[in-house]
Amino acid sequence: ELGVCYYPEQWPRAKWEEDAARMVELGLAWVRIGEFAWSRIEPQSGVFHWEWFDEAVDVLGKAGLKVIIGTPTAAPPKWLVDRYPDILPVDARGVVRKFGARRHYCFSSQRYRLEAARITEAVTQRYGAHPFVHAWQTDNEYGDHDTIHSYSRAALHAFREWLAERYGTVEELNRAWGTTFWSMHYNSFDEVDLPNNLVEEPTPTHLVDYFRFSSDQVQSFNKAQVDIIRRHSPGRPVTHNFMSQNTDFDHYKVGEDIDIASWDVYPMGGLINGRLSAEEKQRYLRVGDPDQPAFNHDLYRAVGRGRVWVMEQQPGPVNWASHNQSPADGMVRLWTWLAYAHGVDMVSYFRWRQAPFAQEQFHAGLLLPNSEEDQGFKEVAQVIAEMKRLPKGEKRGKASVALLLDYDSRFATRALPQGRDYAASAIALDWYSAISRLGVDVDFIGQHCDLDGYRLVVAPDLVIPDADFIARLKASDVKVLFGPRSGSKTRDMHIPGDLPPGVLGDLLDFRVTRVESLPAFQAETVLYGNTSHQTTRWRETIRTTETVLATFQGDYRPDSPALIGNEKARYCATLPRDEFLLKLMGDTLAWANVGSLPDLGDLRLSRRGKLHFAFNYGSATASAPAAADATFLVGGRSVAPADVAIWIQSTQDAAIK
Amino acid sequence: ELGVCYYPEQWPRAKWEEDAARMVELGLAWVRIGEFAWSRIEPQSGVFHWEWFDEAVDVLGKAGLKVIIGTPTAAPPKWLVDRYPDILPVDARGVVRKFGARRHYCFSSQRYRLEAARITEAVTQRYGAHPFVHAWQTDNEYGDHDTIHSYSRAALHAFREWLAERYGTVEELNRAWGTTFWSMHYNSFDEVDLPNNLVEEPTPTHLVDYFRFSSDQVQSFNKAQVDIIRRHSPGRPVTHNFMSQNTDFDHYKVGEDIDIASWDVYPMGGLINGRLSAEEKQRYLRVGDPDQPAFNHDLYRAVGRGRVWVMEQQPGPVNWASHNQSPADGMVRLWTWLAYAHGVDMVSYFRWRQAPFAQEQFHAGLLLPNSEEDQGFKEVAQVIAEMKRLPKGEKRGKASVALLLDYDSRFATRALPQGRDYAASAIALDWYSAISRLGVDVDFIGQHCDLDGYRLVVAPDLVIPDADFIARLKASDVKVLFGPRSGSKTRDMHIPGDLPPGVLGDLLDFRVTRVESLPAFQAETVLYGNTSHQTTRWRETIRTTETVLATFQGDYRPDSPALIGNEKARYCATLPRDEFLLKLMGDTLAWANVGSLPDLGDLRLSRRGKLHFAFNYGSATASAPAAADATFLVGGRSVAPADVAIWIQSTQDAAIK
Amino acid sequence: ELGVCYYPEQWPRAKWEEDAARMVELGLAWVRIGEFAWSRIEPQSGVFHWEWFDEAVDVLGKAGLKVIIGTPTAAPPKWLVDRYPDILPVDARGVVRKFGARRHYCFSSQRYRLEAARITEAVTQRYGAHPFVHAWQTDNEYGDHDTIHSYSRAALHAFREWLAERYGTVEELNRAWGTTFWSMHYNSFDEVDLPNNLVEEPTPTHLVDYFRFSSDQVQSFNKAQVDIIRRHSPGRPVTHNFMSQNTDFDHYKVGEDIDIASWDVYPMGGLINGRLSAEEKQRYLRVGDPDQPAFNHDLYRAVGRGRVWVMEQQPGPVNWASHNQSPADGMVRLWTWLAYAHGVDMVSYFRWRQAPFAQEQFHAGLLLPNSEEDQGFKEVAQVIAEMKRLPKGEKRGKASVALLLDYDSRFATRALPQGRDYAASAIALDWYSAISRLGVDVDFIGQHCDLDGYRLVVAPDLVIPDADFIARLKASDVKVLFGPRSGSKTRDMHIPGDLPPGVLGDLLDFRVTRVESLPAFQAETVLYGNTSHQTTRWRETIRTTETVLATFQGDYRPDSPALIGNEKARYCATLPRDEFLLKLMGDTLAWANVGSLPDLGDLRLSRRGKLHFAFNYGSATASAPAAADATFLVGGRSVAPADVAIWIQSTQDAAIK
Ligand SMILES: [Zn+2]
Ligand SMILES: [Zn+2]
Ligand SMILES: [Zn+2]
Repeated sequence: ELGVCYYPEQWPRAKWEEDAARMVELGLAWVRIGEFAWSRIEPQSGVFHWEWFDEAVDVLGKAGLKVIIGTPTAAPPKWLVDRYPDILPVDARGVVRKFGARRHYCFSSQRYRLEAARITEAVTQRYGAHPFVHAWQTDNEYGDHDTIHSYSRAALHAFREWLAERYGTVEELNRAWGTTFWSMHYNSFDEVDLPNNLVEEPTPTHLVDYFRFSSDQVQSFNKAQVDIIRRHSPGRPVTHNFMSQNTDFDHYKVGEDIDIASWDVYPMGGLINGRLSAEEKQRYLRVGDPDQPAFNHDLYRAVGRGRVWVMEQQPGPVNWASHNQSPADGMVRLWTWLAYAHGVDMVSYFRWRQAPFAQEQFHAGLLLPNSEEDQGFKEVAQVIAEMKRLPKGEKRGKASVALLLDYDSRFATRALPQGRDYAASAIALDWYSAISRLGVDVDFIGQHCDLDGYRLVVAPDLVIPDADFIARLKASDVKVLFGPRSGSKTRDMHIPGDLPPGVLGDLLDFRVTRVESLPAFQAETVLYGNTSHQTTRWRETIRTTETVLATFQGDYRPDSPALIGNEKARYCATLPRDEFLLKLMGDTLAWANVGSLPDLGDLRLSRRGKLHFAFNYGSATASAPAAADATFLVGGRSVAPADVAIWIQSTQDAAIK
Repeated sequence: ELGVCYYPEQWPRAKWEEDAARMVELGLAWVRIGEFAWSRIEPQSGVFHWEWFDEAVDVLGKAGLKVIIGTPTAAPPKWLVDRYPDILPVDARGVVRKFGARRHYCFSSQRYRLEAARITEAVTQRYGAHPFVHAWQTDNEYGDHDTIHSYSRAALHAFREWLAERYGTVEELNRAWGTTFWSMHYNSFDEVDLPNNLVEEPTPTHLVDYFRFSSDQVQSFNKAQVDIIRRHSPGRPVTHNFMSQNTDFDHYKVGEDIDIASWDVYPMGGLINGRLSAEEKQRYLRVGDPDQPAFNHDLYRAVGRGRVWVMEQQPGPVNWASHNQSPADGMVRLWTWLAYAHGVDMVSYFRWRQAPFAQEQFHAGLLLPNSEEDQGFKEVAQVIAEMKRLPKGEKRGKASVALLLDYDSRFATRALPQGRDYAASAIALDWYSAISRLGVDVDFIGQHCDLDGYRLVVAPDLVIPDADFIARLKASDVKVLFGPRSGSKTRDMHIPGDLPPGVLGDLLDFRVTRVESLPAFQAETVLYGNTSHQTTRWRETIRTTETVLATFQGDYRPDSPALIGNEKARYCATLPRDEFLLKLMGDTLAWANVGSLPDLGDLRLSRRGKLHFAFNYGSATASAPAAADATFLVGGRSVAPADVAIWIQSTQDAAIK
Repeated sequence: ELGVCYYPEQWPRAKWEEDAARMVELGLAWVRIGEFAWSRIEPQSGVFHWEWFDEAVDVLGKAGLKVIIGTPTAAPPKWLVDRYPDILPVDARGVVRKFGARRHYCFSSQRYRLEAARITEAVTQRYGAHPFVHAWQTDNEYGDHDTIHSYSRAALHAFREWLAERYGTVEELNRAWGTTFWSMHYNSFDEVDLPNNLVEEPTPTHLVDYFRFSSDQVQSFNKAQVDIIRRHSPGRPVTHNFMSQNTDFDHYKVGEDIDIASWDVYPMGGLINGRLSAEEKQRYLRVGDPDQPAFNHDLYRAVGRGRVWVMEQQPGPVNWASHNQSPADGMVRLWTWLAYAHGVDMVSYFRWRQAPFAQEQFHAGLLLPNSEEDQGFKEVAQVIAEMKRLPKGEKRGKASVALLLDYDSRFATRALPQGRDYAASAIALDWYSAISRLGVDVDFIGQHCDLDGYRLVVAPDLVIPDADFIARLKASDVKVLFGPRSGSKTRDMHIPGDLPPGVLGDLLDFRVTRVESLPAFQAETVLYGNTSHQTTRWRETIRTTETVLATFQGDYRPDSPALIGNEKARYCATLPRDEFLLKLMGDTLAWANVGSLPDLGDLRLSRRGKLHFAFNYGSATASAPAAADATFLVGGRSVAPADVAIWIQSTQDAAIK
């Protein structure tokens, strides 16, 4: 189903009915409102103006739309900030971040938690049982504008309490943090500071604990809202709209407290800010990184334990990246089908109509500011027409391959990158991309997840493995490919006692005796099969009794293992990219007995139930690898640039044996 | 006439007579003094030491020099700062900017306004009627070192008052700022903050209003000084020495309160900090951007409503750019003639003698620190000799082409650039340069200016047009070429109700339905005539009933209009540069019936009355496009690098039909 | 002799004996301990836990190791910081730099000086006469993490006192600082502020005085510790471990108060952060800049007045650079021999065993965290075996060439660089490198040093010459080559009265009439002999009666002198690099009658007594330029990459006539 984000408070009352009617006429089923309306709902302390919101819900609901209400806590009103200035967050320099945009609150402010509960209580009391209200969103985009980490007094005190809870005794903290180093010993939890404005980097365990603490603050802040919503609005699903690839907090943990994970899809800015080279960015400028949206659909499907929505879908050019190009015509349709193909059950466009004022006035809507239909509107209409040709009720099946994304490991790499431009997020996306180019569907897992049904787990950066997870992996018949640095730290951010890979050693016998971070200008040669490849950024020296599948060559330690493995597990001691990575993934899939296709180039595939999808991100027409007996429901075997094909076939897909 | 900046307080008393005599002997007529002398005039609170200043004025005046006194408010003394610490400005991070250099005051400090008035009163009382004092300068270089914008408590309160004045009611502010967005509603003006240290960008109207407020603070600060000067020194002209291309405040408004606009000419740093590519910077390294000084002469001629001086002319290498190359020998002479050709009536060199101490000890003077004549001295002597060959009293005539520079529009682009490196100043200079390369003189106008006598207005970036200006334009027979983004915002920083170009639609029927900011690596192809050109940075999608004069080509929306027009107006939907821009300007001049010449390359022309000037910025000798009957007063038809030719001819100039 | 840095507080008590035994078995003679142990020695105010430290000294000493104790003042404990928060340093933004790493103290804090004296007193009282304690180190790496410059209240008050001491009267300060400029006059020392957070740069004398003050604060802080140590531990040498190429304080002055200068050798990070181009960095990635370690050995030999140690030698990859590559196998051995060849009498590796926790867990040791021998361990063993083949007691002789490094001049260039990327440190290293490539040994001198025995002084950047030094130079028969900017400032940071080179004019008759800093993209052509070379960054215009040895060519002031000289002195008016610099140095050595060799490429030589050393930094085998009668003690004539040759020969070395 499709929906749209709407801000009745931003438009004259006279337009609401017409807007609602046009939404329904277009074929939209859902509408999200309210997440930035606090100052309109409660313009002064304790003075509530519900009437306009009542009316808005009424108008939308009566038109036939299912309403999602966002709790308005992402943007507390000025009167509240003036009354309680210490709800404001403090940046890493120690400067208070002022009112005037959004997300101007500190997750650790007890006062703000009370106020957030108060307004959530008020809104859910009033609309919890409203027949037109079908779902709830908590807050908005946790982590946007770097707001997970606050360095306030409130954060300091909460951090000390969190540490006391985690460690029990300060001596245990001293042990974990290694405070025998540099005379850092603490005599009590109250001596511990936040890790900002230091002379030099703090001990990495200090940083990782601060990241974990900050993550837990988000979880508990969100949970408090969910509890209130569930109390007043039982039976309606609760979601939160996550950001793409934010790793400032553990999304799985927040995901456990909600019913559906949703995320906000902005591929144009994602390209500009993303992992690709300048040449690749030019090539994909108006279609975006061919893998970044799919990666996130699959990730948030895991975060939502199977249920995933898109709460905001980019409908045209936006405003917030360093440059803001237009999507190619057709991409709004393509992204909508892509979401569906990856298991998304609701796509809501952001926003109905472009606002002619305020910060996002360069952000497109389905309508132009003068209410004309923009390009996105027309593409949504096309999708809706096409949807009618498809069978209902198809469900995304489980994949054979699971990609492991572990937030604790990301905290670890951030705290101690060792190389300035070491980019764990980009590495994971590179790995995902290689698998996708071979036509294979991917699920995401965390270490807490069930492994049943998978043939292969790929773990590009499992820095801190759980012993329990490794044990379950060992007990299963799943094969696994680890990236470099996997197993390199314990939960305390120490090097494992008998060297990395620590508990991974249960799967694969080797020791990492030396690591190097390398500048981009340095290429290391790796001989894999009969071919030499170049890698950069990271190289490890390994001692192993396992089979050596690739070796480093060149002046420095030639013949040192670059890839090792046994029947169960493989470990890569460097960062393959491009051809090397593609070949490595192809071989790994074959090893795990997962069917794959030859390199698809700029084409991408996906399956949902019996539906097969192909998406063309290239600038030339491509051929969909459909079976000879394929019946095309949308498009055809020949897929134009920015176009989509959807088909059914009886023959089994080569990539899903 | 020529002059020089002199600092008697920096030199032994014994040198003054000799210095004055050498100035006169060289042929200088003017001398500027006093603008940094406060701590010498009033070394302690209320203790005035006038005797040395009296003497200095006497020595200079008796030698035959006309004295310009600068009010010393650009550098309040330490005892004053210590007594009233809140006169110091506060930077955008919230940090107080300390004493120890200059411009360490906040324009909003009421205390500083009192003190500035007090010292101005004291100085003008004493010297206002002095027979040797012929002119006044207020303060020094408003805006240098980013000092227009202060984030002090004083600025906060003044801003709130300014907003109350502008909007009357807070609800009107809420409407204009669009505070229904992100829950930003204000209940009173006292809730409004300064737009710094926010979590994310403030609403752009907040920013633009802060820029307007800051601009108005400069105007009123300056006006207060002018009023005092006029009271005590009636009949002497008042000037201010502006900086080149500073757009932090509305120079036209300050210009209205003074008699003569002057500006400070530093082409070497202008090149290093300027718009050109690294290759171009290398090519013009020691001659400077061939258009930047001329652009500013023409601009400040408009700011001074016809009267323009150069208060500081670079006489050799300086100290403040990232790199400080020497001008080519001959350039001090060339710049002096350039100023004269563009209507400048007085050129004062900065400075008489290089200081061997303090911040500017690497800043050349006409004399070296040991009082030897430096290269600039010799070139000034040459100019003075050459001047005697020229007829007196020639006035710069009105041009056929007016370039519109609108400060409010610059505030708008700065507040909401949409592309990180979108550079409105560089675009305007590019346009000016293209016209200049075709041999055509240019005037500058603001929207308040009279249009009489112009055939063509070029408006590279009129983001916020006044309805009145557009109406006057429409009523005139002036043709107009608009650059992209023209008309894209209302005075409230909103998108116009029926889409851009808002009120420009009265001249040309089109709508901008989509804009894109593009990274430098992305080139868009534009077909203009039979030639394809590349543009980058900005592209608009336009719907129009007017004639399409150029189109975009390529994969994305091919044949979309890139340049449109009717008999009155043309609009360009992208950013032409180089060949494309030159061709566009050539065609536009022809369309407006303005005569022009073939591309002059590195030669530049100018006319002042019946005098014709040519300036060679290239590295090869060039031929001045003088008529066959030309009589050369300075130089000849063949113009060497860094050289000048001045002639009279009876034949009409092809570029001034 | 060799040693190692050890942290008993970081390891279980049970490991100490085994560690000590392995150290001795490897052949180490020294062990440094204690410099970060304050919080373990005094975990609460006044509560001392000596027993573990007693035991550590005992265990190490009884095993046969000579103990060096570092005073633990580089890392005061948290309880102390909490009790006296104003001991923390303040950064240039005005932000307090917090506890949690190290060096979190302000040199100007009187409170911290008392506390540092108290703990130093306590430690030296207890161990000063201990038979196992053979040497002392003060604090640790003064200047690391940019900690020389603090902007605290304490620094402010101390700076004012320092100024009063230096200038006597505030009018003398006003004269020196040139406060007639920009109205900067001070009425008392108490009006003077620290030079941070100004609107624009302060007067350069203000900055240079602040740098001198900060330097003096380090000296007096260190001296206080040395005095205490000498009182309680007479006869044991005192050292401090300096950082490579730090120029934040005058190392000669600190060196005068200690017995031995030591420094910390990290060539891998030195390469990454250093002067070389990206291509050169790639070429030398795992061997490091071939001249940077040698440069520092020679420099600190001067700082230690002949006695130099390496307190920390990199034993493998480390953690603190932007990228952290591994040294090539063999380099730990090579660096050890290099140190010895340059006169170093003790090399201590940092550290015994890699720590598995805290900030430096990626920093290699001789042992891996699990106590396995790492590569460095094996190379140390090799060095120790090889050492036995060498005659004992060889002393590094005096060189014929002295390179002048003057810290006051570095402060001057830092305060007033004139070109943003002007890098005096890199220039000095370039000059050193050119001499080294010609096979010639170098000593370092300051202006206070004796000139006896030198044939040539090279002074790449003697900005502020002492008249006394110049007089001694003139009176000697030493020849001298000056780099650009030499003599360009007086001690007050003024341009000399009759232009630069000020007092250098006693040696060479010329005047610098103009200087230019140039961007990297601008090349100036210099004709030297029959060859044209390119220089960039800096060019001077010179007037001289001396012989012109090279000239600038091109459009700007062709034939202007680029290199001038007489029989005593030469002066270069630009920055030669690469071939030009090599040729210039070759000619200069010949002029000074110093023997040299043809360009050695990537080979480097050194002599210690009768021992000759060759070090190969290239990727191909090189031939050691040993005499025909050479006897090789280590290696042979053919030197492999990363390898060393050591020989004795009876024939005199061509490069040491
Ligand atoms: Zn109401
Ligand atoms: Zn006086
Ligand atoms: Zn104890």
